[in-house]
Amino acid sequence: MTGPVEFWFDFSSPYAYFAAAEVDRRLAPFGREVVWRPFLIGVAFQLTGMGPVSQAPLRGAYALRDCRRIADMLKLPFNLREDFPYPSQAVARAFYWFDQEDPVIAVRFAKAAFAAYFGEGRDLRGVESVQALAMPFTDGRDGLAQWLSSQEAKVVLRERTAEALDKGVFGSPFFLVDGEPFWGWDRLPMVEAWLRQHEGPGAKLSGPEARSGLAP
Amino acid sequence: MTGPVEFWFDFSSPYAYFAAAEVDRRLAPFGREVVWRPFLIGVAFQLTGMGPVSQAPLRGAYALRDCRRIADMLKLPFNLREDFPYPSQAVARAFYWFDQEDPVIAVRFAKAAFAAYFGEGRDLRGVESVQALAMPFTDGRDGLAQWLSSQEAKVVLRERTAEALDKGVFGSPFFLVDGEPFWGWDRLPMVEAWLRQHEGPGAKLSGPEARSGLAP
Repeated sequence: MTGPVEFWFDFSSPYAYFAAAEVDRRLAPFGREVVWRPFLIGVAFQLTGMGPVSQAPLRGAYALRDCRRIADMLKLPFNLREDFPYPSQAVARAFYWFDQEDPVIAVRFAKAAFAAYFGEGRDLRGVESVQALAMPFTDGRDGLAQWLSSQEAKVVLRERTAEALDKGVFGSPFFLVDGEPFWGWDRLPMVEAWLRQHEGPGAKLSGPEARSGLAP
Repeated sequence: MTGPVEFWFDFSSPYAYFAAAEVDRRLAPFGREVVWRPFLIGVAFQLTGMGPVSQAPLRGAYALRDCRRIADMLKLPFNLREDFPYPSQAVARAFYWFDQEDPVIAVRFAKAAFAAYFGEGRDLRGVESVQALAMPFTDGRDGLAQWLSSQEAKVVLRERTAEALDKGVFGSPFFLVDGEPFWGWDRLPMVEAWLRQHEGPGAKLSGPEARSGLAP
């Protein structure tokens, strides 16, 4: 009962942008590893009959307003590009290139990608813009360009997407905690409540913050 | 900027059940009137292309789990009937019969209806079951039976539903605060944050709870 928290998301999801900005801080007191898992939400949309919320009648305009409010609350910049939602294959594949070498760097890259697209309004559809974004994180390592056009990168992302669907992940962001599913940025308080109730022995030893269950 | 908070909902919505249980306590510190407005969500579903969440692939099973978790958290009984979602015309019409005479009694009746359906698993589809539920709130007043079968009751509910759609209400529960829309039980903390930021002079005079913005 003390496994990692799985954080599933599509890089093109604004609510995932908010979750990505909050998840480390909010879950840190519980001493659980958080595993970041980008996938392609489009496949899930086909299964559920849902679509990008921005394109839904009535709900679309509401969601934009909702996002602006949340961004204000979290003090995050929010500049939605006209190409939203964008195909996030290139950025998700780049994530897994970093992830195979060092998950910590991959998470830093992911945060930079969210900040670039939703904060600065930068284009992340193409391979070249993703490479430019990745540059500061490569530590001089070559091979990202080849990876992005490789069959292997496609397979990895396809397998992660299949894994997400196998696990019942149908939205973004989506958290799995000991198999318990939580959909949406707005469920982070419930993830916290769940972790508080199901703390393992490791978390119990990790200080008063863990016991109180309060985020710093 | 100190008008009432409008609380729109369909009696057949489990998330409205949760909101109904919380809204008074959470919004009381702000000194705003809360106006309860049942309507028929089915018409909104037609406009948005959404449907009852329980019938959606993948999301349906998740929503049930989500509801059980929320009910546990709020310490509310939750026994979903097999006829869910149910046609809530009769109970919504009964609400407006009470509301025309005394909105406070109407709210008590509404809470009883939520508790009966979602807590005790009682059938509320028919006129007779709704009359039985309403009995303790009538204070001996006659006329509910006639009202429930009247053209006037149909018109009132139809007008309220049209009003909801006019105001951009497309889900249940849905809050309107000074025209600002909030969709979902999970947005109550954001309604609180909004009220905290937009307190009118009346609220400012109503004590330290109002200023701290903390629910009791």
